[in-house]
Amino acid sequence: MEQETLKQIDALKAEIDGLKKRLTNVEGYNKDQLSIALVSGDLDKILAAMIISLAAAAMDTGVKLFFSFWSISALRDPKKKAQGKDFMSKMFGMMLPNGRNKLKLSKLNMAGAGPAMIKGLMKKQGVLSLEEMFKQAAELGIEITVCEMSMNLMGFKREELIDYPNLRYAGAATFVSDAGESSFQLFI
Amino acid sequence: MEQETLKQIDALKAEIDGLKKRLTNVEGYNKDQLSIALVSGDLDKILAAMIISLAAAAMDTGVKLFFSFWSISALRDPKKKAQGKDFMSKMFGMMLPNGRNKLKLSKLNMAGAGPAMIKGLMKKQGVLSLEEMFKQAAELGIEITVCEMSMNLMGFKREELIDYPNLRYAGAATFVSDAGESSFQLFI
Amino acid sequence: MEQETLKQIDALKAEIDGLKKRLTNVEGYNKDQLSIALVSGDLDKILAAMIISLAAAAMDTGVKLFFSFWSISALRDPKKKAQGKDFMSKMFGMMLPNGRNKLKLSKLNMAGAGPAMIKGLMKKQGVLSLEEMFKQAAELGIEITVCEMSMNLMGFKREELIDYPNLRYAGAATFVSDAGESSFQLFI
Repeated sequence: MEQETLKQIDALKAEIDGLKKRLTNVEGYNKDQLSIALVSGDLDKILAAMIISLAAAAMDTGVKLFFSFWSISALRDPKKKAQGKDFMSKMFGMMLPNGRNKLKLSKLNMAGAGPAMIKGLMKKQGVLSLEEMFKQAAELGIEITVCEMSMNLMGFKREELIDYPNLRYAGAATFVSDAGESSFQLFI
Repeated sequence: MEQETLKQIDALKAEIDGLKKRLTNVEGYNKDQLSIALVSGDLDKILAAMIISLAAAAMDTGVKLFFSFWSISALRDPKKKAQGKDFMSKMFGMMLPNGRNKLKLSKLNMAGAGPAMIKGLMKKQGVLSLEEMFKQAAELGIEITVCEMSMNLMGFKREELIDYPNLRYAGAATFVSDAGESSFQLFI
Repeated sequence: MEQETLKQIDALKAEIDGLKKRLTNVEGYNKDQLSIALVSGDLDKILAAMIISLAAAAMDTGVKLFFSFWSISALRDPKKKAQGKDFMSKMFGMMLPNGRNKLKLSKLNMAGAGPAMIKGLMKKQGVLSLEEMFKQAAELGIEITVCEMSMNLMGFKREELIDYPNLRYAGAATFVSDAGESSFQLFI
């Protein structure tokens, strides 16, 4: 009988080990973490991304932002200039908004009157400015990765982007890997 | 020997308790629930959001919608009027589509001919109208939360919005909290 | 005493069975799988979707794409023609981009100069063309489902779409079901 008991205990141990492995696997896809892939560079979309990110970070959720394509405009620092750009890169540089203060609205842009209205209203309502949102994001440890392929395509150089702690440059595989382990992902 | 057995059983109990805690944690991020943050107010985007939401609700998945920015146009009731609006609020009120029947397509809008075409085709194909989709959403218990900050920025008042059961007003933190416990999130 | 031991072992078994059920449930929402609902037909959005999908598939994550509304333009084969289309279907056919080589950028389209620029730069930087991305997607087993309702609304016929292995036609419920079991979902 006692041997029977020991056999049963061993069987339970094996079952528990199996559950542990399955659970570790599931936990791998479910860190308390939010990953956002940004593609749009519209003021309203960037605002939405930052508002959601700050709300998540304030709730102690890890936040990883991946800036690609048009969204990189929001990371340009108008006070910085890059040297040695070719013709195409200069074209993109001129045509795309130079920094977060130049972003356009996806609707009602009205040649810049719309963004001015929204910014005025945000100030009046006590909402943080985009400037302040990025500062707070840095303080809350929100991680920003910039899409290297987009940088190359549009001819942006690293020395043109804003100062942000631990700004990282990487490819889509990095976004996928971060997003895959997050419990929560968005495409903006 | 028997004491050894009891020790082993206690060890197993401790392991099981550890697994329970980890599992409860993972379950916390994985309710059978869909959370959508709506920012866009285009007819095609609102249609997509409602079609996905109704399909999910029909499969007994809980659905929570967070309407912000331009998407709030879809919740305006053209038959209702708010009093005491300031100049800016009146401007937004006039410039933005007044209700789900006035939404524009993101492409091929053609001054309203596109939406009319799509609505005609939907009717012909036996697809529910947006009107009917909201009615069904209410019946299926789909929860709608309206972004309070967007309401304030654009000067919309609660008395202008459609009648919908348990319409809730809250901030981005509420979306993040709902979305964080959902197994499935979208940004539209 | 021994009977007490057996009772304890039975209790542990019951607890383990309970955990198994809960874990199976959670695993049901967390396959190592990415589900994307595509609605946009802009070149930049389709590129983003394919780049993310290929990165995921390369990491052995299952990928399921659901093409709806405007995104179906990317699946049109300009070399194929469908017979017996009604007036509305012909209109849509003419107004929407005929295939992935005709897609427009959401910004800086400049009557086709923008897409040409981007494609030239992609080639120069050694990025795969959209053509090659679809080929690789097929090789990596990325599954494509086309929204049946959108096909009907816009009057597209199956014989007009590209050859792609196991191209499937289904409704939103299929997307929701695929996405619900995925660990990672995007709306593009």
